[in-house]
Amino acid sequence: MKEFCIFSICFINLLLLESCSCAGDSSVVNPCCHYPCQNSGVCVRFGADRYKCDCTSTGFNGDNCTVPELWTRVCLMLKPSPASVHFFLTHFPWFWDLVNSSFLRDTFMRIVLTARSDLIPSPPTYNSKYGYLNWESYSNMSYYTRLLPPVPEDCPLPMGTKGKPELPDPKVLAERFFKRKRFRPDPQGTNLMFAFMAQHFTHQFFKTNQEVQGGFTKALGHGVDANNIYGDNLMRQLQLRLHKDGKLKYQLVKGEMHLPTVSEVHMVYPKDFPPEKRLVMGQELFGLLPGLTMYATIWLREHNRVCDILKAEHPTWDDEQLFQTARFIIIGEIINIIIEEYVQHLSGYLLNLKFDPTLLFNSRFQYSNRISLEFAHLYHWHPLMPDSFLIDGDEIPYSQFIYNTSLLMHYGVEKMVDAFSQQPAGQIGGGRNSHVVVLKVSEMVIRESRATRVQPFNEYRKKFNLKPYTSFDEFTDDIEMARGLEELYGDIDALEFYPGVLLEKTRPNSLFGESMVEMGAPFSLKGLMGNPICSPQYWKPSTFGGETGFNIVKTSTLKKLVCLNTKWCPYVDFRVPQNEEETKPRTTTTEL
Amino acid sequence: MKEFCIFSICFINLLLLESCSCAGDSSVVNPCCHYPCQNSGVCVRFGADRYKCDCTSTGFNGDNCTVPELWTRVCLMLKPSPASVHFFLTHFPWFWDLVNSSFLRDTFMRIVLTARSDLIPSPPTYNSKYGYLNWESYSNMSYYTRLLPPVPEDCPLPMGTKGKPELPDPKVLAERFFKRKRFRPDPQGTNLMFAFMAQHFTHQFFKTNQEVQGGFTKALGHGVDANNIYGDNLMRQLQLRLHKDGKLKYQLVKGEMHLPTVSEVHMVYPKDFPPEKRLVMGQELFGLLPGLTMYATIWLREHNRVCDILKAEHPTWDDEQLFQTARFIIIGEIINIIIEEYVQHLSGYLLNLKFDPTLLFNSRFQYSNRISLEFAHLYHWHPLMPDSFLIDGDEIPYSQFIYNTSLLMHYGVEKMVDAFSQQPAGQIGGGRNSHVVVLKVSEMVIRESRATRVQPFNEYRKKFNLKPYTSFDEFTDDIEMARGLEELYGDIDALEFYPGVLLEKTRPNSLFGESMVEMGAPFSLKGLMGNPICSPQYWKPSTFGGETGFNIVKTSTLKKLVCLNTKWCPYVDFRVPQNEEETKPRTTTTEL
Repeated sequence: MKEFCIFSICFINLLLLESCSCAGDSSVVNPCCHYPCQNSGVCVRFGADRYKCDCTSTGFNGDNCTVPELWTRVCLMLKPSPASVHFFLTHFPWFWDLVNSSFLRDTFMRIVLTARSDLIPSPPTYNSKYGYLNWESYSNMSYYTRLLPPVPEDCPLPMGTKGKPELPDPKVLAERFFKRKRFRPDPQGTNLMFAFMAQHFTHQFFKTNQEVQGGFTKALGHGVDANNIYGDNLMRQLQLRLHKDGKLKYQLVKGEMHLPTVSEVHMVYPKDFPPEKRLVMGQELFGLLPGLTMYATIWLREHNRVCDILKAEHPTWDDEQLFQTARFIIIGEIINIIIEEYVQHLSGYLLNLKFDPTLLFNSRFQYSNRISLEFAHLYHWHPLMPDSFLIDGDEIPYSQFIYNTSLLMHYGVEKMVDAFSQQPAGQIGGGRNSHVVVLKVSEMVIRESRATRVQPFNEYRKKFNLKPYTSFDEFTDDIEMARGLEELYGDIDALEFYPGVLLEKTRPNSLFGESMVEMGAPFSLKGLMGNPICSPQYWKPSTFGGETGFNIVKTSTLKKLVCLNTKWCPYVDFRVPQNEEETKPRTTTTEL
Repeated sequence: MKEFCIFSICFINLLLLESCSCAGDSSVVNPCCHYPCQNSGVCVRFGADRYKCDCTSTGFNGDNCTVPELWTRVCLMLKPSPASVHFFLTHFPWFWDLVNSSFLRDTFMRIVLTARSDLIPSPPTYNSKYGYLNWESYSNMSYYTRLLPPVPEDCPLPMGTKGKPELPDPKVLAERFFKRKRFRPDPQGTNLMFAFMAQHFTHQFFKTNQEVQGGFTKALGHGVDANNIYGDNLMRQLQLRLHKDGKLKYQLVKGEMHLPTVSEVHMVYPKDFPPEKRLVMGQELFGLLPGLTMYATIWLREHNRVCDILKAEHPTWDDEQLFQTARFIIIGEIINIIIEEYVQHLSGYLLNLKFDPTLLFNSRFQYSNRISLEFAHLYHWHPLMPDSFLIDGDEIPYSQFIYNTSLLMHYGVEKMVDAFSQQPAGQIGGGRNSHVVVLKVSEMVIRESRATRVQPFNEYRKKFNLKPYTSFDEFTDDIEMARGLEELYGDIDALEFYPGVLLEKTRPNSLFGESMVEMGAPFSLKGLMGNPICSPQYWKPSTFGGETGFNIVKTSTLKKLVCLNTKWCPYVDFRVPQNEEETKPRTTTTEL
């Protein structure tokens, strides 16, 4: 009887966006389970069966924050859709040529930065324990934050009040919609150099603590602190440091600088892994893939190179000041390369993105960041991974790739960079492109999102000012997938977040669909520009030891990063070469 | 020879603001020891004997950031001196009556807030280990931050390059300049209710870690998080909570709510202190003084009162949500009372200060805060303490006051509030007003400031846009003190920070001198308004459980805080009564 009550009366009430209660039944449904508050209004439960939407500063009024204020109405009328903006930014090269070579580049870049980062609440809000604001949630950095509160505990259905009483088996979802049939390369030309950068870069702020259930992180810096290079705690950092001239420990192999083997530094390697092959680096998991070890080697060399430059200018500085200043320069280099090359590539924009913190000096931007669980989930880009790895004419299967630290010594950094830059990565969006080796990962994300009660995909669409999908057919062009998802979820409003961003139809010739870009970019840019080095207090030559260090940051590129630290300069880029000319090796570094 | 070289050539060079070096001597003086960079320029040492001032965004140019840019020149010409501004704000009541009753109140309040808080770097900068910006200093919350870097380690003299080779004995300083001769009441009428509020309030963010030497704090929230009520860690909080209806544990004594005695909560009490008198509260040191225990009792009652109100509106909320939301309301009440009554009283301003976070919503204000060592030092306001305590006709000496938790039970909150509100506190500034019981504290601060190498008082004057004093006679009107300080320090530019803010001549009829106000206010307002609850994301009804809670925050007063939690309403204020009418007890709470 109780179930009947909940599932009939509630659904009728739901349509009217009214509170749901059953007369004479004490098990009243939490009205916030209907997500009644629109436009980022906050749902607060009053009494047993009432709620109020707090519409403060949403630009909307009314019981459910659905009535736009005059100014909002004007903005809504003038504001182009995300799809139009994307189309505009990826077409009309003549226009963008003009923009890129004039002051307009700054103007557009400022708009991109503020429009994106305004979507991320700062100070942060909820977390996996707290669906309401409070001091613990604000101050306890062990949690990932959350953009939307968890689905309330007492809702009648797993996703609130819509969908099926049981969510689909993650294994079934993975098998039917994520598993690769045939490798589908990314139409934007993304390569493995990009894929490994993505992995190396993001694992400084995505370090889910698996020892505790639900939404905890081990990366307390919540941003670009280069802990993947220096360790995520002071003890590890001290173990990795040479304690001389600011440098990190290293070993020389055939006259080249490589990662050291230091027994006291904890690393995850298979049992009985030979000690002489146990390379150590900032991130304890980066022994897993030679692509990650390669990046770790490059950054190690870069750090030590920068230390030499600093020491020459500041002979009186002690080890500590050289180390700390080099670290700040490295953080600056990372942010620059990520914005101007990595995000540039990802976006497909014809606007030349620019890393220039001064663009935000006059806006109300908050220089702080908290990594959110949703960002961690959507960044599981495992479809990038190929079927096997092609290096210097050899085809290497996964079985010989993972935990193979000898590969790097064998081929050298140059050939690895060259190989990874030439090998295409898989398309992330659209589904059915995850290699069987990484298929478990999507299952795992889905399981974690359930344990942490992540709200439905469509609620996130709304949060990011996107229209919620009205049907699975609108969500994907793949009819078989649409039917399958409908059968498993029952209702488009019950579709989960991760399947949502991963399986959504891709934009034409793009790495992924609309939602991934529109949701990922705000998190990403806020994290990059929210770094303290971007604040007016920090963004000045003295912070980086003077003009020399400041210029290293401002002029850093992926190519310089590699080629100032290698014997010869391979083909290095985040996309596969478009013609043969590009791939010719260069020995000179003068053009850097 | 080396000493001679340092002490002769260096002093000549210093006058020319040139770098100081001794030809042929390897022990070159660090040129930054001269503090050559003016107007907040940053000194970076290059080579052995060179330096560069980074003048970025100071508004000045030139080798030492002394040449104002055009715009700066205009601002400097138009900007009134701090003394003029203070005079203006404390005179012309007819003008301020007009301002206070019009929209101009908001305008002036916004100017006060932004002008003050713009002086505090955010994100924070240096700390006691690091005289330069770096990630560790930014991210390690165990440090107090610092507005100015420490005196470089390798300077020829303790305060840089000026003054005597040995700093004066702190004991001698305390005896000669701090020790009270005769109690000098504060001319602004400050009372003990204020003094204990100061102590209760500030010890949530001043919790110097004495186990580690030099500039570390145990209060990792770095601001108003009410850890003095709820404990500074989660375990302590859980021990203090009732785990029912959001409330804190309490005991009923004669039908009144009092602090509980819970054996597992760590408190600092004398050895063999009777268990039944071991009252426990958020701050482990607050058993020391009945004034602090009294405030702890009032806040305990207020928290539990708020919980009842919240529970009536939100019967479905669990203990956790009631507790957390009540805590946020309490934090809001604290900030409101501190700004509108405590700082109002302190300032002596005729402008009615207003706690309204929306005033800053359009400015580039950073909602974060880091407590600085200088703020902790200057806030040692022990001259406030009287010679003895007068309660309900009894005179209680220190010996019977400290660790006497029975006093509160004996007199009750009402009579204590009444007594403390009527008894004058001592004048803080001007020297010679520290009771012998607290004299050790000034010694301790001076010792700590040396261990942490705090820069000279005059450098802080410059940092806060105040003219450095040119002589001890300009610094104080007390000729004996001027001669004494000159004899001990040798040079006004070598005068230490804490003696500087405490011994400086007071403003006419004021609690303290110019520097204390001009340096203390920025730290204070930045800390209060930098709280997350003041951010646009948080400052809305839902954050406080709805309009009811939001209104409790917005309309809180010291009087309501006391009288909504007592049987009768005593005289309660931060200043002594000005006429007899004020002190009549009221039993009704309708006017609240």
